[in-house]
Amino acid sequence: MAIQNSAGLSLILRLELENSITTFGQVASAIGETGGDIIAVDVIHVGKSHVTRDVTVNVFDRAHGQKVVKALDSKPGIKVVNVSDRTFLVHIGGKIEVNSKVPVKNRDDLSRVYTPGVARVCQAIHEDPSKAYQLTIKRNTVAVVSDGTAVLGLGDIGPEAAMPVMEGKAMLFKQLAQVDAFPICLNSKDPDEIVAIVKAIAPAFGGINLEDISSPRCFEIEERLKKELDIPVFHDDQHGTAVVLLAGLLNAVKLVGKRLEDLKVVVCGIGAAGIACTRMILSAGVKQVIGVDRAGIINRNEEYTNSMWTHYAQFTNPDNLTGSLAEAIQGADVFIGLSGPGVLKIEHVKSMAKDPIVFAMANPNPEIDPEDAEPYVRVLATGRSDYPNQINNVLCFPGIFRGALDSRATCINEEMKLAAAQAIASVVSDEELHEQYIIPSVFNKKVVKAVRDAVVKAANRTGVARKEIRNIF
Amino acid sequence: MAIQNSAGLSLILRLELENSITTFGQVASAIGETGGDIIAVDVIHVGKSHVTRDVTVNVFDRAHGQKVVKALDSKPGIKVVNVSDRTFLVHIGGKIEVNSKVPVKNRDDLSRVYTPGVARVCQAIHEDPSKAYQLTIKRNTVAVVSDGTAVLGLGDIGPEAAMPVMEGKAMLFKQLAQVDAFPICLNSKDPDEIVAIVKAIAPAFGGINLEDISSPRCFEIEERLKKELDIPVFHDDQHGTAVVLLAGLLNAVKLVGKRLEDLKVVVCGIGAAGIACTRMILSAGVKQVIGVDRAGIINRNEEYTNSMWTHYAQFTNPDNLTGSLAEAIQGADVFIGLSGPGVLKIEHVKSMAKDPIVFAMANPNPEIDPEDAEPYVRVLATGRSDYPNQINNVLCFPGIFRGALDSRATCINEEMKLAAAQAIASVVSDEELHEQYIIPSVFNKKVVKAVRDAVVKAANRTGVARKEIRNIF
Repeated sequence: MAIQNSAGLSLILRLELENSITTFGQVASAIGETGGDIIAVDVIHVGKSHVTRDVTVNVFDRAHGQKVVKALDSKPGIKVVNVSDRTFLVHIGGKIEVNSKVPVKNRDDLSRVYTPGVARVCQAIHEDPSKAYQLTIKRNTVAVVSDGTAVLGLGDIGPEAAMPVMEGKAMLFKQLAQVDAFPICLNSKDPDEIVAIVKAIAPAFGGINLEDISSPRCFEIEERLKKELDIPVFHDDQHGTAVVLLAGLLNAVKLVGKRLEDLKVVVCGIGAAGIACTRMILSAGVKQVIGVDRAGIINRNEEYTNSMWTHYAQFTNPDNLTGSLAEAIQGADVFIGLSGPGVLKIEHVKSMAKDPIVFAMANPNPEIDPEDAEPYVRVLATGRSDYPNQINNVLCFPGIFRGALDSRATCINEEMKLAAAQAIASVVSDEELHEQYIIPSVFNKKVVKAVRDAVVKAANRTGVARKEIRNIF
Repeated sequence: MAIQNSAGLSLILRLELENSITTFGQVASAIGETGGDIIAVDVIHVGKSHVTRDVTVNVFDRAHGQKVVKALDSKPGIKVVNVSDRTFLVHIGGKIEVNSKVPVKNRDDLSRVYTPGVARVCQAIHEDPSKAYQLTIKRNTVAVVSDGTAVLGLGDIGPEAAMPVMEGKAMLFKQLAQVDAFPICLNSKDPDEIVAIVKAIAPAFGGINLEDISSPRCFEIEERLKKELDIPVFHDDQHGTAVVLLAGLLNAVKLVGKRLEDLKVVVCGIGAAGIACTRMILSAGVKQVIGVDRAGIINRNEEYTNSMWTHYAQFTNPDNLTGSLAEAIQGADVFIGLSGPGVLKIEHVKSMAKDPIVFAMANPNPEIDPEDAEPYVRVLATGRSDYPNQINNVLCFPGIFRGALDSRATCINEEMKLAAAQAIASVVSDEELHEQYIIPSVFNKKVVKAVRDAVVKAANRTGVARKEIRNIF
């Protein structure tokens, strides 16, 4: 059985093999017997008596890796010189760099990009600050801002530990949408201070991508920044997730032949992403959304200690239902999970309306095991890459910022998000649309262009664009 | 006469020439007659009746450029289609970009640089924050921080307008020393807020280069950040200038056969750079420094409204001289000017000791006209690239940060700065040393390595290095 890399580890074992005693066949069988999966073999050095090889092996976890190493070391003529982890190796020294766009080869170049020539450029921007968009990196640059308080499923791990995620995000911004993004990880958890900092650093940037900031602080920080800055501010954990979820939902309902306005939708997990998903699908035309969290169905009879829940009850749950998930889910057309593993039971799914649609997006383990759910659901999507229909923010943020930057938008508004969701959905053609293919792959090259174009149009239509449509792709 | 580009403008004129009426010879003579200097000619399009050419022309200033354009337009068969400014052209869209170090080609790559694999890397840093130096960009990345209050000679032009300088600096960091630098231009002038912001953004960075922050705010901001951060904080306008000045001074005194401890030095212009230069040469062994500013010789009889001057008098001017520059300069061995054009008169120079050494570093116009000064001085250095002996910070900041990052220093201390100055001076060999060559060119490839090695050694010697010496070049 091949080991899914996304679940397991990929190790590089440097082996010294004594020619007279052992062969590579013996190495391969030792690895195979312990359940390791050989991915690649490189010869590093060939000597008279020894050969050095790097063997890349996928294993389930660290303990399994140790078992493989032990098995190899116990064989005569095989010595494990070094074990490295491919994921860690790719992070050594960080994953991004800052480069000049033009070389500075001589004094003449230097006098243009730096003193004294640069003074005239500075003066021009000073006289007309909007020229920052022509003469600095602003028009193509986004800050990826985090305080490290809600990183992946790891929680509050701090700004240093958040950096690998933000660097990864900057890589994807560049690779997928040619956006220059730089990580700003803040050693502060105070919303007032975070707002002040982001406002202060904004001059260099054409947009702000907020990332992995814990709830409810993320709401206040985003709302205040949106009001006080004239560049787009976008909390990806909320809105990126919501846009991609809506894209999937649009295609799922098309597939099962239902209409958004007729759906009964249960959202399980009323945190930042759950609230954003709810707002997004309500904007798109859904009428009946019922929120469920640890307190049961979020309703208007209660005054919750989490004020966001009290607020949430005001614009959801039209019939003011009460009870648990079991009550909420009866007759529901769609389940949207942003909670934890195992929350959705088979009995719940069985009580749903015909052609159940389940988005089980808890990471790394979904609300219901996909294999268990399969016989009972019509459409199933998760946050994972090793099942069909992955709901992944990577489908949204590169294109939505590309469009916002290209139109020099002052914000990313509801219409732009809706347009992005429709664009993502549209990449799956009617002919391709299928239970296992409601959402395109993150490597589908059509996605960014489709999202960008739709977002540029929406920005122009809604009057937030400061630049006419032009095509850069 | 060739036009120095650093003083003038370089324009690209797009010309449409009617074949039957005109020739390129007529273009060349029209430009020549108005005093323009043709640098390059490119053919853009050849048609039956017309040829389109881009002609790059150096001119003295904008008015001169208009004269050249007018002369061309008045000739039959020559049409000036477009005029662009090479300095502005190189700034379009900014001068730096953020790139991935490794491509993300497939799902396997994605799962390592981003979710889910990246979570293990985050966790490792969370458990041991010092791993940020191995697994993030921290070990090679410097923030270039400015509030735009003292940009070049332009003054308080704001953060947007400061960006072209900071981007230029980031280019030079990369090109000369492989340091990744990112500009952070702050929309705040409040020292408390600036200190809080820089502290908050520090996790991603291995060093902070403060730039173009007005005096006296720059002193407080730098001092507080040095105390509160465990990474180097270096205000380049103060210390970069001081290091390069000292390098020049070391070679100048060697040339004239004097000793630092015997010198009488006049420093004219007691702002941030003047104070830093004074401290630097005092650390290097000079005993007698006399400061002069608009208030005359800075002395201990006065209580100045500029508190930095009152403080300055405490550690300079041992004989507590009073009077003007004319009194201070009598018998002085060295004049160091960081003031304004024309401050130093020929009579002043004539009253100096034998073999006068003059650093006239006011920009763009020095304290004394180099041609006027030449007959009376032994060694003359300026801040300009169009005379010998340019005192340019570019000689210092790339190498000093390269050394600080490589040794993972907690600061850039006095010993590291002294070592940097000696290293810069050492690049000029005894055989090469000459009145016109006391300081290497900014394009001398030996400079960065010499500075880096000296700084690494000094960091280790003074116990501020967190990493053993290793050679990366």
